[in-house]
Amino acid sequence: MLTYIFEKDSKTPLYEQLYRMIRDDITSGKIEAGSKLPSKRSFSEHLGVSKVTVEAAYSLLIAEGYIYSVEKKGYYAEQVGIVPFAQPRSEEAAPPVKYEANLKSNGVSLKYFPFSVWAKLMREVTLNYSRELMEPVPYNGALCLREAICEYLAENRGMRVLPSQVIIGAGTEYLYGLIIQLLGFDKKVAIENPSYSRISAVYRSHGVDCLYVDMENDGISIDGLYRSGADVVHISPAHHFPTGTVTTQKRRLEILEWASEKDSRYIIEDEYDSEFRFVGKPISPMQVSDANGKVIYINTFSKTIAPSIRISYMILPPALAREYEKRLGFYSCTVAAFEQYTLATFISEGYFERHIRRMKRRYKVLRDDIISQIENSPIADRVEILEPDSGLHFILKIATDKSDSEISEICGKEKIKIAFLSEYYVGKKDAGEHLALINYSGISSEEFKKALICLEKATAL
Amino acid sequence: MLTYIFEKDSKTPLYEQLYRMIRDDITSGKIEAGSKLPSKRSFSEHLGVSKVTVEAAYSLLIAEGYIYSVEKKGYYAEQVGIVPFAQPRSEEAAPPVKYEANLKSNGVSLKYFPFSVWAKLMREVTLNYSRELMEPVPYNGALCLREAICEYLAENRGMRVLPSQVIIGAGTEYLYGLIIQLLGFDKKVAIENPSYSRISAVYRSHGVDCLYVDMENDGISIDGLYRSGADVVHISPAHHFPTGTVTTQKRRLEILEWASEKDSRYIIEDEYDSEFRFVGKPISPMQVSDANGKVIYINTFSKTIAPSIRISYMILPPALAREYEKRLGFYSCTVAAFEQYTLATFISEGYFERHIRRMKRRYKVLRDDIISQIENSPIADRVEILEPDSGLHFILKIATDKSDSEISEICGKEKIKIAFLSEYYVGKKDAGEHLALINYSGISSEEFKKALICLEKATAL
Repeated sequence: MLTYIFEKDSKTPLYEQLYRMIRDDITSGKIEAGSKLPSKRSFSEHLGVSKVTVEAAYSLLIAEGYIYSVEKKGYYAEQVGIVPFAQPRSEEAAPPVKYEANLKSNGVSLKYFPFSVWAKLMREVTLNYSRELMEPVPYNGALCLREAICEYLAENRGMRVLPSQVIIGAGTEYLYGLIIQLLGFDKKVAIENPSYSRISAVYRSHGVDCLYVDMENDGISIDGLYRSGADVVHISPAHHFPTGTVTTQKRRLEILEWASEKDSRYIIEDEYDSEFRFVGKPISPMQVSDANGKVIYINTFSKTIAPSIRISYMILPPALAREYEKRLGFYSCTVAAFEQYTLATFISEGYFERHIRRMKRRYKVLRDDIISQIENSPIADRVEILEPDSGLHFILKIATDKSDSEISEICGKEKIKIAFLSEYYVGKKDAGEHLALINYSGISSEEFKKALICLEKATAL
Repeated sequence: MLTYIFEKDSKTPLYEQLYRMIRDDITSGKIEAGSKLPSKRSFSEHLGVSKVTVEAAYSLLIAEGYIYSVEKKGYYAEQVGIVPFAQPRSEEAAPPVKYEANLKSNGVSLKYFPFSVWAKLMREVTLNYSRELMEPVPYNGALCLREAICEYLAENRGMRVLPSQVIIGAGTEYLYGLIIQLLGFDKKVAIENPSYSRISAVYRSHGVDCLYVDMENDGISIDGLYRSGADVVHISPAHHFPTGTVTTQKRRLEILEWASEKDSRYIIEDEYDSEFRFVGKPISPMQVSDANGKVIYINTFSKTIAPSIRISYMILPPALAREYEKRLGFYSCTVAAFEQYTLATFISEGYFERHIRRMKRRYKVLRDDIISQIENSPIADRVEILEPDSGLHFILKIATDKSDSEISEICGKEKIKIAFLSEYYVGKKDAGEHLALINYSGISSEEFKKALICLEKATAL
């Protein structure tokens, strides 16, 4: 059985020592993924500690996604995402697989990127802003871009914010890193479970503790949030990835209430595809209802314009914006001046709104086409379409006796990439099973047709 | 006298507790900058701890730049760079002062930015790379750009590196953050004293301990480096800012030797303006002599092309490059695909080398003009020009009875911005006094003429 030596004089409680030692063994691969851990009773006897100590360590390990429990069976080590060490290479690795259809990628097709307009604006910028391009861009981004964003948010999202609250950065992942530096590395961050794995990857890579809190039908579990002991919660209330859940107004107010109860609490509102809502009135961001300066709002242009545009922004509450200037204002802005001026012109001259409207129409046509393909295919009898009204993906609930990994494998052989919700859960064994993710922003109707034929075959009863 | 309560049962030694308590009071402003600290003897009696404890705490505080000692006088709190809290603002802050001449800024004039070539290449990229621009850029940057960089480094710097060792990022500060995540937040980083303050600012902002090690005529003090207990040393051997020192070959080998003695040790070689050496043969980077995979080489295109280009890169030793891919490969590259392809073409079609040659000629003419202006001005009698053969700045040693801050103030009133070496030292009171920094990359001959007249007046005996 696993044997651990405790530091008897340590100020760290025994359950936390045990938690850390097991965690490190799982991370390092010493305890293999999927292997069974000792039962609480036998482990406590073996280690000479109380059963409560083992219980507390196991709960922490479950909460943090290192182990999972199977009812009436016991505890098992989670696959914590260790990639096998690459062999020394003398040349560049092979390019990634070219798929016939990729339903996992949430990339945006560059087909609709308004190249000619963008090129025209770049030329204009070199002519009109030649003087400004010579000045260094402020730490928080070019003023004209921050102004254009504020105006756009006021008109389209009902947000009243000042250019001094805006921070421009090269991608949302970079902004997460800045938020950690701003709020402190000691903060515990609650992450939605399931979620986009890169979010927690950024926090973990900065040594920040991530606590997984379950998603419910109304949004992140409010009880789970309280129980987690988190300082900061990172959520996508407008359209959650991957479940597609839109957080209800009631839950939003509960989360704001949670944040207002302690000075150290903050909400990171990550609106990655909020522009694309097809049915009903768009819901205001939580930022609008934030009376206490608790919401850090994040959005990106990679989804709305093109992934080749690496420009994201965050809106800080005024007090945090001052704190940012004071402590992190030494950082140079990571986005080239050129691109900032071009994007500012793109927004302020109305191209952005028109582009969004056009894309929304295109995506709606594509979505309707894909849904009709599904409804008219032999698979129609055994599937159900969930959450199709917002964002750039929906869920296909499939009745099948094949496991998700079997289906992925069969599809993969035909160069069809498919993902299931189950891949995005941490520490929950059977959650999200048979819920396929249909990301349609990057594929064509023809590509989906191929994918559907393959999926029909792979899930046949 | 200052009173502190120690935690008697703590595992943290008393000297470290004392160090932390004083540090926090200096950082928070409770101990004012410039105020005198108690003598070691009286403080140890007052606190009821040994004199050795106080001595150890004071040494740490000096090493970390929180206090400084004045011979035969005592210990004083350092100005640790706290900016007074800004008032809540209802609108954007006023734009920065427009100077008649700015000798502090090491910016690059955009006057010589090859706009028309760049615009032409951007158009070519949209035509030739339309397919590639649709694919996501790999985490480490576009392959064509990494290949172009490797080829350039092989031809011009004698470096033999593979594209798989290159990581492209939006600015060097962002790369420092990635290095911290790669090497670990627990690593202690030795910083040159004096140095460019943003380097330590990035490390500190990530919670990483910075240890200041003195610069000597041959490079960073090797004894100081050993004594510091650092794991990582961050240096600019090709041309140190602000002293202009070029690290000797002997010292380079000593630093490589230091790094090879422990697995955890690494050298960050930051070559921000190595392209511009006017006299003698360029020295090979330390990366070339690195047999043990200890050197992380960093360079940027902001200095060589234009500050509006936010593209930097680092070369990792092969083992670290594999570790990076494994642990940090989830990060999206922070530079837009567009810019990467444009820059790759700019380099591979030879524009970059031609641009560098042209800039070198221009900078040499400008430097010679500026030096001749100095030698033919009334100030000639009381100045000495130091380190003018490399990089984009040199030092003017001025014999004057005015203090550096008096001179800066007089010049400031006439909208001439001037900086002294003394501003870049941490924890050393009179170091670098009367050594003015002449950064000429961003100014014109006319602007320098105005600056010189003002400097002559301000330093008059």
